[in-house]
Amino acid sequence: MGIRVAVAGASGYAGGELLRLLAGHPEFDLVAATAHTQAGARVSAVHPQLAGLDLTLAETGPATLADADLVFLALPHGQSAALAAQLPAGVRVVDLGADHRLADAAAWTRYYGGTHAGAWTYGLPELPGARAAIAGSERVAATGCYAAATSLALAPLIAAGAVEPADVVVVASSGTSGAGRAAKVNLLGSEVMGDLTPYKVGAHQHVPEIKQATGATGLSFTPVLAPMPRGILATVTARPTGSADAREVLAAAYADAPFVHLLPEGAWPHTAATLGSNSCHLQVATDVDSGRVIVTSAIDNLGKGAAGQAVQCANLMFDLPETTGLSVFGVAP
Amino acid sequence: MGIRVAVAGASGYAGGELLRLLAGHPEFDLVAATAHTQAGARVSAVHPQLAGLDLTLAETGPATLADADLVFLALPHGQSAALAAQLPAGVRVVDLGADHRLADAAAWTRYYGGTHAGAWTYGLPELPGARAAIAGSERVAATGCYAAATSLALAPLIAAGAVEPADVVVVASSGTSGAGRAAKVNLLGSEVMGDLTPYKVGAHQHVPEIKQATGATGLSFTPVLAPMPRGILATVTARPTGSADAREVLAAAYADAPFVHLLPEGAWPHTAATLGSNSCHLQVATDVDSGRVIVTSAIDNLGKGAAGQAVQCANLMFDLPETTGLSVFGVAP
Amino acid sequence: MGIRVAVAGASGYAGGELLRLLAGHPEFDLVAATAHTQAGARVSAVHPQLAGLDLTLAETGPATLADADLVFLALPHGQSAALAAQLPAGVRVVDLGADHRLADAAAWTRYYGGTHAGAWTYGLPELPGARAAIAGSERVAATGCYAAATSLALAPLIAAGAVEPADVVVVASSGTSGAGRAAKVNLLGSEVMGDLTPYKVGAHQHVPEIKQATGATGLSFTPVLAPMPRGILATVTARPTGSADAREVLAAAYADAPFVHLLPEGAWPHTAATLGSNSCHLQVATDVDSGRVIVTSAIDNLGKGAAGQAVQCANLMFDLPETTGLSVFGVAP
Amino acid sequence: MGIRVAVAGASGYAGGELLRLLAGHPEFDLVAATAHTQAGARVSAVHPQLAGLDLTLAETGPATLADADLVFLALPHGQSAALAAQLPAGVRVVDLGADHRLADAAAWTRYYGGTHAGAWTYGLPELPGARAAIAGSERVAATGCYAAATSLALAPLIAAGAVEPADVVVVASSGTSGAGRAAKVNLLGSEVMGDLTPYKVGAHQHVPEIKQATGATGLSFTPVLAPMPRGILATVTARPTGSADAREVLAAAYADAPFVHLLPEGAWPHTAATLGSNSCHLQVATDVDSGRVIVTSAIDNLGKGAAGQAVQCANLMFDLPETTGLSVFGVAP
Repeated sequence: MGIRVAVAGASGYAGGELLRLLAGHPEFDLVAATAHTQAGARVSAVHPQLAGLDLTLAETGPATLADADLVFLALPHGQSAALAAQLPAGVRVVDLGADHRLADAAAWTRYYGGTHAGAWTYGLPELPGARAAIAGSERVAATGCYAAATSLALAPLIAAGAVEPADVVVVASSGTSGAGRAAKVNLLGSEVMGDLTPYKVGAHQHVPEIKQATGATGLSFTPVLAPMPRGILATVTARPTGSADAREVLAAAYADAPFVHLLPEGAWPHTAATLGSNSCHLQVATDVDSGRVIVTSAIDNLGKGAAGQAVQCANLMFDLPETTGLSVFGVAP
Repeated sequence: MGIRVAVAGASGYAGGELLRLLAGHPEFDLVAATAHTQAGARVSAVHPQLAGLDLTLAETGPATLADADLVFLALPHGQSAALAAQLPAGVRVVDLGADHRLADAAAWTRYYGGTHAGAWTYGLPELPGARAAIAGSERVAATGCYAAATSLALAPLIAAGAVEPADVVVVASSGTSGAGRAAKVNLLGSEVMGDLTPYKVGAHQHVPEIKQATGATGLSFTPVLAPMPRGILATVTARPTGSADAREVLAAAYADAPFVHLLPEGAWPHTAATLGSNSCHLQVATDVDSGRVIVTSAIDNLGKGAAGQAVQCANLMFDLPETTGLSVFGVAP
Repeated sequence: MGIRVAVAGASGYAGGELLRLLAGHPEFDLVAATAHTQAGARVSAVHPQLAGLDLTLAETGPATLADADLVFLALPHGQSAALAAQLPAGVRVVDLGADHRLADAAAWTRYYGGTHAGAWTYGLPELPGARAAIAGSERVAATGCYAAATSLALAPLIAAGAVEPADVVVVASSGTSGAGRAAKVNLLGSEVMGDLTPYKVGAHQHVPEIKQATGATGLSFTPVLAPMPRGILATVTARPTGSADAREVLAAAYADAPFVHLLPEGAWPHTAATLGSNSCHLQVATDVDSGRVIVTSAIDNLGKGAAGQAVQCANLMFDLPETTGLSVFGVAP
Repeated sequence: MGIRVAVAGASGYAGGELLRLLAGHPEFDLVAATAHTQAGARVSAVHPQLAGLDLTLAETGPATLADADLVFLALPHGQSAALAAQLPAGVRVVDLGADHRLADAAAWTRYYGGTHAGAWTYGLPELPGARAAIAGSERVAATGCYAAATSLALAPLIAAGAVEPADVVVVASSGTSGAGRAAKVNLLGSEVMGDLTPYKVGAHQHVPEIKQATGATGLSFTPVLAPMPRGILATVTARPTGSADAREVLAAAYADAPFVHLLPEGAWPHTAATLGSNSCHLQVATDVDSGRVIVTSAIDNLGKGAAGQAVQCANLMFDLPETTGLSVFGVAP
């Protein structure tokens, strides 16, 4: 008898990827998946890639979730805090949403609106000390997709004093699944194929999360929507301090991390190489003209940026090897 | 100590997918991967999605392969027969190429040129009697990608007498990985994105294989190159005989097949839903105007159309459950 | 002072393409563009590709249209007939919708529902006698996108007796703009990229239009949604009668057609090669196994399949050269 | 009798786009197109989108070009200088390559290698004073694609003292046609679809051109390859000086520029909206956290980034309206 697991918000893209990962997980038993407007539908009718999975979506609520040992929340921001508050102590919870990520309540209110529900353990296992903190927590807020790609590139450099935290410039492009599954004209295939477009320029809600996770004190962050279903490529630039070599810092930081790969010199990250995996591919260079350190980082936004990250955290919470049920390798081409 | 496995032709797309599947297979130990011009390169330099796989490509030849219990051949047609002839008896071999698929030597010579090397057990496990034949064979010729998609849609209907074998019309579209990894201008991203184009119209080399696998006696087959890396969608039409219901025939044929899913009425196959999996999704309808039976079939051309199919055959050859190391679920969106 | 032109239904994809073509047309003056929910918006806010076009969308209705010399209707089926009935005689009208295409009222009701509004001159100029009929008409129903691609491939062959009309099989794949601009989950970029899927299999509403335009008496038609914004590739197969050579028939039929190109032997149609143009590219082959004639046909579904076709018809209605304001050449790569 | 025009290097992507534009240009008569390995081929065999263009590729060399009034050079760097030197005075030349763009010979040698052939008038008409300089020149070096997108966003801001020139950070993503038409594995559709990857990080050859065109003194430039055939999206960030408003500066700079559109507030550039056009779409914002000015810029890399730009320059050289034969509007969706 394995660990009983439920997914709330299973009709979206992150929810679907969670179901896929959980269906193949050797220790977690998927016992319930819930949704709101899609409640009552077969999972395979909502997620055609899960044809053969014998499960029906239940209505999201504590009644359908409280019986599980572990609950994943893949809900819009604002909703997960309300639901989590109704789950009994003892049920471990991993929230894929933003409600519990920020320690700074004022920052939360400024970017998301409403009242801050309080911070949980931040779920990016590769940050210093994070594995132990996650393993000892009953409630974990898994990192967001842009924050995952950016923080893995940047956090060790700031922590080691290799780059200045006050002048970080990030441009990050995401596949369309990062924008969710709501039916919107600007997300139609006809509109996004062949197109690159920036959005929320100047004030993206992930800025405070990235600053918190990395220690950056000044951050310019520009997100771009890219014509592909999945993947984030973050280009992170900062001024070197001269006190440490960026490559050596990254190599040391991830020497024992199974999912973070600092590529050999001359190889560049490809988002496609991370598809379906929980891996992050990094490369670092120094700009000959400006002298800036440039770290490029590729992840699958639904993998290391969402569902994979959440499962990795859950593995730690249940003392399982962190790679259990997750793939290091991407599905390419 | 597991079963020792080697892959010849590991630098191509089918070879890369084999390595990905074998790296996650619980019973097969990947001991060697070989290539020709890429021999000496790290696998992860050739297949960036395999970053973290500690393996170097050896030179293709019997010296690097004969030590394995099982060898997969993912080579251009003509090359696998020559290499297989040099492997000792007792080494089980699954050929992903065309050299040993056809029983009809004249047909082989007509479509491929050169001398026919002889037929092996045909590796499409879902055909009647095929599982036992494969399990009892040391040499298996795994089915081709177009033949897999088409035969799963058509073979049971002809076997059951539900459709006439003399007038089958198939149009099948494939993602670009089906055209291989050789650098050709017409396969550049700039040329294929946003484009659909037919090719080899009127005389495709997969026609005799499809006829052999399905029992069709008259076959019009038109392949189309589609703007996506993976996936085949085959539209198979034939005249009903009136003696059996097509839907019932397909449902019965695949009642116990873990990888073949006849979708509920109203749902249509999506190639994206099979990505990275070994599944085939089928749907059947009757054309109100012409009365033809139309079966549509979706697979991942590198999964059920190549590497996944080959691993499924190998599982049977080693008395493992046929799903071992393979995914039923696709990576989507 | 040019010919005063208005577009009703300018907020959709066909409407946007009409605006683009009309903005560059040397004889037509675009005086009004109308929409419903988007009325009041700047055209460039709805169609970002038209940045720089100084025009605001008016409310769709006779008040905003009756003042024009020529009105294009790019409306959902059912709406164009109602609006057309309110336009004064003397205003020439080209309808891009289906309301007036079919001569057979029963067929219209069966596939579209509701009452048939009556047939107008059918707007496919390359059909025998069509140019004169269009030139002499005040009301023209431009052909649909699938019907355009299919009929250009098939109509001359049936007219010449080169193929049998009773057993035609067509599989045609369309880019996503053919499915319109309504916000639907199944049309999101995340869902369609990397995906091929059939739809409306067995009973597509374009069947009676294709039969009427081509003379086919038995037609199996399967549409497929392809991962690209624009383009249709139709694969049309039929049995040869032996009484005429298909290639010669097509060459003769289009010898003087500026937009229809029978490609040299060995070249295959590419949808990308027709992007943004009003051209149709054709190629013909004979299947060695089945003996069927296979004609493949590529168009831009918004060009020769919608807006370009409509402008070509309008050119004829105003005694302009049929190529006025239209491009023969595609935008590629 | 129009102006006689020839294109050298007509087999590549920029060359093909030049032919498309010239075929529709009312004042320029396309009299010759040349290539090297493709010499002797029909243009439509090399560029299927030009089916119907009755022209054969000649061998590149002065013999086939010197008879023209105007020659466009679309050749690899190093080759255009050698050819241009053989063309008689009086033949006007627009070079789409890099050979004559840089005034700084040392910079040229550092990034391109070899001997600098000398600078020509720099062909970005929207720079201050550039129209007159181009109009008075017999030889013009049209700007590169990345430089066009970046300079239109940045040059007016530095010229007006609105931003500091010493700390400019640019991340720019390009469609695959920017990487050329040579057959390379890393440019295959199978590799690029679904993928974002940076390249030449830290030392891209366009850095000195951008610095020259904009006055930037410190520039971090990271190029990214994006999964689409065409388009560049540049994200340009710099520190404001406080002495001028960035939006007002850009609005004033392009008030009379027909091809550069500063979008209304709230609208963001889309590369797809510029496809096939010679337009550049700009938007500006201020980052709330870092205070940086962020300008995003979208062009068609083969339009305003190559062939369109070159035709615009040629129009000026022959005293034609700069929009002659060029489209302000993009082909979308």
